[in-house]
Amino acid sequence: MSLRYITARVAQQIDEELMSTVGAFSIDQLMELAGLACAQTLATCYQKTTYPRVLVCCGPGNQGGDGLVAARHLGMFGYQPTVYMPKPGSKDIYKRLAKQCENMDIPILPPSEGTDDLKATLKTTDVILDAIFGFSFKPPIRAPFDKVLPLLSESRLPIVSVDIPSGWDVEIGNDAGLGLNPDVLISLTAPKEGVKDFTGRHFLGGRFVPKNLDKKHDLNIPDYPGFEQIVELPSVAKLNL
Amino acid sequence: MSLRYITARVAQQIDEELMSTVGAFSIDQLMELAGLACAQTLATCYQKTTYPRVLVCCGPGNQGGDGLVAARHLGMFGYQPTVYMPKPGSKDIYKRLAKQCENMDIPILPPSEGTDDLKATLKTTDVILDAIFGFSFKPPIRAPFDKVLPLLSESRLPIVSVDIPSGWDVEIGNDAGLGLNPDVLISLTAPKEGVKDFTGRHFLGGRFVPKNLDKKHDLNIPDYPGFEQIVELPSVAKLNL
Repeated sequence: MSLRYITARVAQQIDEELMSTVGAFSIDQLMELAGLACAQTLATCYQKTTYPRVLVCCGPGNQGGDGLVAARHLGMFGYQPTVYMPKPGSKDIYKRLAKQCENMDIPILPPSEGTDDLKATLKTTDVILDAIFGFSFKPPIRAPFDKVLPLLSESRLPIVSVDIPSGWDVEIGNDAGLGLNPDVLISLTAPKEGVKDFTGRHFLGGRFVPKNLDKKHDLNIPDYPGFEQIVELPSVAKLNL
Repeated sequence: MSLRYITARVAQQIDEELMSTVGAFSIDQLMELAGLACAQTLATCYQKTTYPRVLVCCGPGNQGGDGLVAARHLGMFGYQPTVYMPKPGSKDIYKRLAKQCENMDIPILPPSEGTDDLKATLKTTDVILDAIFGFSFKPPIRAPFDKVLPLLSESRLPIVSVDIPSGWDVEIGNDAGLGLNPDVLISLTAPKEGVKDFTGRHFLGGRFVPKNLDKKHDLNIPDYPGFEQIVELPSVAKLNL
């Protein structure tokens, strides 16, 4: 039985089930574990001695929240994260997570459209964490992100994307060619259909899905090692050899 | 500069600062990371192949909440946890955390005073996670716990205690001799004064204290390794050699 690649609709349904009165999870809990998994994935692939300066790009939704959690943990791990929110989220939890980064003296760029601040920061960045769009993204790429994504791509810096590389259709992938091309991907809960052919290093996080939910949705989540919060998936490149 | 052992009052103050509008943390976040650290400590010391059956004993307060989070993560790690709440907590978060264990089909003992259920379960337990009393505990040990603690001690099973071994005075320790004698201790945020002479394996968890809080309270928190959520402290036994 192989790992299932899920649609945006199924991803949304699993999230709702986890947070329903049945699942009983709060979004704070799930975001904390998801963001920790993102930070650990980046730290696994890009060591802080060589890649200390991480630009954490956060969208306005829940994925941006995961990014803010990851930025805080990266700071705890000894990285030098900088947070960039082109369009900050308006939810209470989002604001609290941003405040937690501020409390750790993590620099936060002003929410501009990829102007001088972003350009200057990219020049002193070693690796990008892309937490801009999540599984609820639907094309087209709207302002201010239409200006931001090309700047991230043109930087040629290594990119770690969360769940779905920003700009990709969640089910179709990067057919339109407008999305980022990350080196590393950290899927949350279960990978999405659009990343089936992703050839970089691919991790899975979100070690909080109860067995009954896994079974109900035929996710076939692989075993995580020991007490880790992430598991590396066999790469598509290797599978196709 | 050596690690500071703190009083109950300072522990309470740090918790309040973390969760104030300044610190901006929710209790859900802190409990999730604390409980994960407890589960990882147990998994570090007692491998699931030899010690699969964990009895997670939870008090009615926040420490019981940490225990419930730990039970869920232990289930995720492949252990066979059983939850025992002699006096279940009444807070909403406590009930949600217990529900999350239920959803994972983790057995929950009825809340009795160490009667037949507890005695029978101890016979099929490999290791105990003691999350009964936390830093707000003040002697004497009240019912139903006055019956429960002796049964746990008499079982002679290995015990991992969270923050302060149950029955110990938070600042004076186990002078009265009524507390548990754990093999392993996982202190949260910073160790408490009462465990200064603890001679077993001692870990620290709670990798969420911002540097400014660490500094303000002279905690001198040691560096955590890599992207781990726990760090083992030098044992008192070794220090005294």
